[in-house]
Amino acid sequence: MIHTILLKHRPKGKPSISDFEFIKEDKELTITDGEMLLETLYVSVDPYLRGRMSDAKSYVEPFELDKPIHSGIIAKVIESKNEKFSEGDYVSGRLDWKTKQVSKGEELHKVDPSKADLSAYLGILGMTGLTAYLGLTEIGKPKEGETLVVSGAAGAVGSVVGQIGKILGLRVIGIAGTDEKIDMLKSKFGFDAGINYKTTNDMKAAIKEAAPNGVDVYFDNVGGEISDAVLFNINKFARTINCGAIAVYNNTEVPTSVSVRPFLIKNSALMQGFIVSNFEDKFPDAIKQLSTWLGDGKLTYSETIVEGFENIPQAFIDLFDGKNKGKMVVKV
Amino acid sequence: MIHTILLKHRPKGKPSISDFEFIKEDKELTITDGEMLLETLYVSVDPYLRGRMSDAKSYVEPFELDKPIHSGIIAKVIESKNEKFSEGDYVSGRLDWKTKQVSKGEELHKVDPSKADLSAYLGILGMTGLTAYLGLTEIGKPKEGETLVVSGAAGAVGSVVGQIGKILGLRVIGIAGTDEKIDMLKSKFGFDAGINYKTTNDMKAAIKEAAPNGVDVYFDNVGGEISDAVLFNINKFARTINCGAIAVYNNTEVPTSVSVRPFLIKNSALMQGFIVSNFEDKFPDAIKQLSTWLGDGKLTYSETIVEGFENIPQAFIDLFDGKNKGKMVVKV
Repeated sequence: MIHTILLKHRPKGKPSISDFEFIKEDKELTITDGEMLLETLYVSVDPYLRGRMSDAKSYVEPFELDKPIHSGIIAKVIESKNEKFSEGDYVSGRLDWKTKQVSKGEELHKVDPSKADLSAYLGILGMTGLTAYLGLTEIGKPKEGETLVVSGAAGAVGSVVGQIGKILGLRVIGIAGTDEKIDMLKSKFGFDAGINYKTTNDMKAAIKEAAPNGVDVYFDNVGGEISDAVLFNINKFARTINCGAIAVYNNTEVPTSVSVRPFLIKNSALMQGFIVSNFEDKFPDAIKQLSTWLGDGKLTYSETIVEGFENIPQAFIDLFDGKNKGKMVVKV
Repeated sequence: MIHTILLKHRPKGKPSISDFEFIKEDKELTITDGEMLLETLYVSVDPYLRGRMSDAKSYVEPFELDKPIHSGIIAKVIESKNEKFSEGDYVSGRLDWKTKQVSKGEELHKVDPSKADLSAYLGILGMTGLTAYLGLTEIGKPKEGETLVVSGAAGAVGSVVGQIGKILGLRVIGIAGTDEKIDMLKSKFGFDAGINYKTTNDMKAAIKEAAPNGVDVYFDNVGGEISDAVLFNINKFARTINCGAIAVYNNTEVPTSVSVRPFLIKNSALMQGFIVSNFEDKFPDAIKQLSTWLGDGKLTYSETIVEGFENIPQAFIDLFDGKNKGKMVVKV
């Protein structure tokens, strides 16, 4: 039996279970030359998928209605007529939300379960780690001794950004939404300070207190009011990495904010959005660096693993309520 | 008699004449070794001076109350005990709003009245031209065939930006506030299209029509709603140069706008504020390039010359009503 999850409706506001459709097909998958049969093991759910569920103009084509959703997946090769991959190999890449599927192996690459847990290849050694590392270094261009603020700090990308910040010699301040997360940022990931935005009345003042020398680099995973508060604390030549805007992804109207322009002008400051594939030529070096740090024990990660293929949509929806700590992965 | 203009009050909202104080002193200025006596000929008034009149945190120190205001000035050396400058030289630099003053010549440089009108050294061959050229090339990084939108296009910087855009092979669209200015952009400065924001109801649609391939580079002199409308039309990898925000400089509350963050993320786009002195090491090459283009007739400029030292504050205030065409200069 092959299970598939389709996009049924384009979500209005926060996605709901009824936006997804589950289908079962009782069919035998056969492969021809160059193809292989894959069994899905781990599925990545990520906030950016929300954007692809809309049909608004974006950096990638929107998902089609009544077609399978796809995201980062780790799969096992169960049969292969492709010379690059053998039965028993594990592969990583963008695949459909299906329990089994046929692939030509394009844009898939092998991963080694002896070097790291398979789920890590969706996280710290996958898009998550690459997004954190390349966003921070290529756009943020941090210099030792500077101050880094990370929003969504307990999330998959945020927790890696903060750790890399520490490795690079920065003062690192994380913003998250529970005291438990703030404790984890400091105890597990080595952040210098944390701010619980849900219990802090004056975010502007709290950031100022945590960043007495001002903010040089802001890795922004959330957009929204938290980011406005950071603006008031940026230094001359500050760099903001606009990685995500989970705070406004579900808005049905165009969100407004404090105007960033006067702040950018006054501080000769930069803001830049990106998606990790902009830096595709840097992936091999970045993965090498991340693997080294991981092997040396300088990087750690947390993940929230939800069990069951049928729970993929709910795991995705839970991202918007901050229910994950670190990378959210579904184990099939 | 020496006339001086002091900052009397920090303006609230739009500056008014009563924020300035005129004083006259009937004294003889004497110079000692290394000094020279200067007579002010032309005074530059610029929107950015508004920022320095506030005491809010900014890229430069605020002007002091009850002290002379200073800005870009062209002066004649009427007596010199400084070995670098001789009587009869013309100099350009940041000087006090005084009819005569003593200077050690630091950060002043000679200008040649035989190569261009003296006022041009406050404009196209001065900070104005440098701001346009270096902002556009260093941050905007335009590529032939791309589309450039310029707001405040009939202003001093804007009209130069547009012309450089044409020299570099871009499609250039200017936004300004009167039909007369729009005509001038097209007939005098070679812009491909112009939009009068005061008579256009739907700026978003008007920009889309003028920029059918989308906006790659946006040189923003105004901030505010016009810039929000441009946002909706930016392309992937668009670059916005945040040069000025005259639309909001006089705001007494923190201005809000459409949130730029989702647009930056969706388009992997960049926004960067700057002041021209960030690129000081590039000034000599930039002035050489601008002089060549000016000499070849590829660049032209307009200026609004107001006569009379006593009219400096009003000329400055008039900037905020768009009364100038091109660079606003006061001839003493």
